[in-house]
Amino acid sequence: MEQKKHKISMIEKRKEVLASLENLGLKTYEQLDSGYFPSITMPSRSTENIHYDPQLRQYILGDRTVRRSTRNIRHLKPFTQLVWAALFSHELTSQRKTSTLRDVYYSAQAYEMTFTDQEESNNIVTDLETVLGFSREDFSIFPEERSAVFGDLTIEYTVPGYEGRTLNLTSHPDGVLIGPALTSAEFVKTTADKVIAIEKGGLFTRFIEENVHKKFNAILVLTAGQAPRATRHFIRRLNQELNLPVYIFTDGDPWGMHIAMVIISGSANAAHLRELNTPDAKWSGVWATDIVNYKLPTDPLDDVDVKRLYELQKDPRYKDPLWQREIKTFMKIKKKAEQEAFSRYGLTYIVDEYLPEKLEAEK
Amino acid sequence: MEQKKHKISMIEKRKEVLASLENLGLKTYEQLDSGYFPSITMPSRSTENIHYDPQLRQYILGDRTVRRSTRNIRHLKPFTQLVWAALFSHELTSQRKTSTLRDVYYSAQAYEMTFTDQEESNNIVTDLETVLGFSREDFSIFPEERSAVFGDLTIEYTVPGYEGRTLNLTSHPDGVLIGPALTSAEFVKTTADKVIAIEKGGLFTRFIEENVHKKFNAILVLTAGQAPRATRHFIRRLNQELNLPVYIFTDGDPWGMHIAMVIISGSANAAHLRELNTPDAKWSGVWATDIVNYKLPTDPLDDVDVKRLYELQKDPRYKDPLWQREIKTFMKIKKKAEQEAFSRYGLTYIVDEYLPEKLEAEK
Repeated sequence: MEQKKHKISMIEKRKEVLASLENLGLKTYEQLDSGYFPSITMPSRSTENIHYDPQLRQYILGDRTVRRSTRNIRHLKPFTQLVWAALFSHELTSQRKTSTLRDVYYSAQAYEMTFTDQEESNNIVTDLETVLGFSREDFSIFPEERSAVFGDLTIEYTVPGYEGRTLNLTSHPDGVLIGPALTSAEFVKTTADKVIAIEKGGLFTRFIEENVHKKFNAILVLTAGQAPRATRHFIRRLNQELNLPVYIFTDGDPWGMHIAMVIISGSANAAHLRELNTPDAKWSGVWATDIVNYKLPTDPLDDVDVKRLYELQKDPRYKDPLWQREIKTFMKIKKKAEQEAFSRYGLTYIVDEYLPEKLEAEK
Repeated sequence: MEQKKHKISMIEKRKEVLASLENLGLKTYEQLDSGYFPSITMPSRSTENIHYDPQLRQYILGDRTVRRSTRNIRHLKPFTQLVWAALFSHELTSQRKTSTLRDVYYSAQAYEMTFTDQEESNNIVTDLETVLGFSREDFSIFPEERSAVFGDLTIEYTVPGYEGRTLNLTSHPDGVLIGPALTSAEFVKTTADKVIAIEKGGLFTRFIEENVHKKFNAILVLTAGQAPRATRHFIRRLNQELNLPVYIFTDGDPWGMHIAMVIISGSANAAHLRELNTPDAKWSGVWATDIVNYKLPTDPLDDVDVKRLYELQKDPRYKDPLWQREIKTFMKIKKKAEQEAFSRYGLTYIVDEYLPEKLEAEK
């Protein structure tokens, strides 16, 4: 296993997050002490300020900024909410507790801080991400959804009660849940030389049962549909810290393509973040051309599928020839296929034939 | 830990399932050998034949039967499909592979067996459950969805490559996935004296972080919304094999109530099965009366919520006074509350105050 030299440990990262939260409070106090109305300036997340960066291969924010000043009566509430969100995140992170967006909304009431609805509190959490440059999982606000991982990777926990304990991710053959504890764990060692991400739970189990992790030296990641943000961040770490190439297998339809694309290049509404994407990950199938080449059982494209393909065709993330070719092929054949469609050749065909052919082609 | 004396091991159960599948084939051959058109008789699952049994506290099938005879040209196809489903399930179970309903549909094509659509193949799998009296998870057809468990229970795997290996269910602090491997594991030992099932992922994590498993000697089960069948079966095993009482915590609305009820009494469309329900499990909250007593932040009931309450009021599973009282209270206060609403009193209030009060009251 080769690790990047300047890897930041998860514990150091948590210290950075806490320092950056404290710094926000410090600046506010300094402004007050100097006799100024506290204010904060951050990049604007309005549509006009979101651009696709072909170098970074993701959406980024442009030069426009917004300034929120307590001198402006209309800014006073969101400024206070932002400072409260920072306080609450600091409490969570320093006490090693986790929370969800929903919980943040209700917790505010314990501090007599009011949000009109959850949309308002979600928005403030996104503001805080923008100000700090950390994603909310870094300051302990996690999604409800959990996906899973399986393969020869030993991790070392950093959560309370488990510090220093290790777990090998083959220890439970149903897969290991990707939650706050796994996400904050250090990577200790692995013999794997690649990561295979899989959209569907049934197929993830099939891959484990057929020993794909051993036969292909792979760490298997279940995305369970659109990958939760914590899972995208985990895939990025596997790629960046362990230098493992990432191959993504989804259903053969515009929605499957986009599950892969969001892992690779992220989404426009996370343009203020860098740490969720894996630009070098590859969408390995099920391609439209696979549907043709492997003569898969198909369903006809629905109107919403076709509409979606037209949208993706114009999307800057899809400009590379492979994506354009696959979009065109979907439109031409007017069909889609699920990952399970390979079972028409027997349950293990996907592992015995399709997978090695695709991995070989991607080299 | 007390275990029931006549506990059937998971390995013995698998043998029973295989024998019962083989028996289906044997009977078909015997009929052929004796010069009869093969036929099969099973309980009818039509609505008129589904009754609520107050003793068993679940829906059961009545005395009506349906006979499917290969002498009848219209029965020939479903009979053949049923025999194929039995063959396929036997292959899966004897080879220790698992599958999903979706996979069954596609796999049929590998055997030149045709189903018009997945609904047709799903239906045949339910027929097979009815004929055998085993649930499809027993013959290796699992749902896509996975939920999780956490607590001091040591299990011993029976799946290939892991036979004899044990895992303590506190080994991963994000929770341990309930998939085919966990479901087929033996229970070895536990210090827990109760099971607490929780609807939401965020709260499941909160309970782990706050050491609810230690403070309350509990095994924590995440239902992740409506509990997947494998999870319901797992909860039943915890209750029956380990004699552990089960307490269920859901959102305070008709949908949360029904998540609890399906764990307790099952659904009408599983009236042909016995092994998914835990009749002695208790719905412990969030009750409508809790919303009042704890002055929780609420949302108004929507029209669909009210409509659902009227349906539940007439449902035979809801005839007990507690359920009727809670339905009436919901209708009176016209409000609902989520589990996270307790965070308005601080993140740990639900664990420090609410949970012990409710568990005490249920004794």
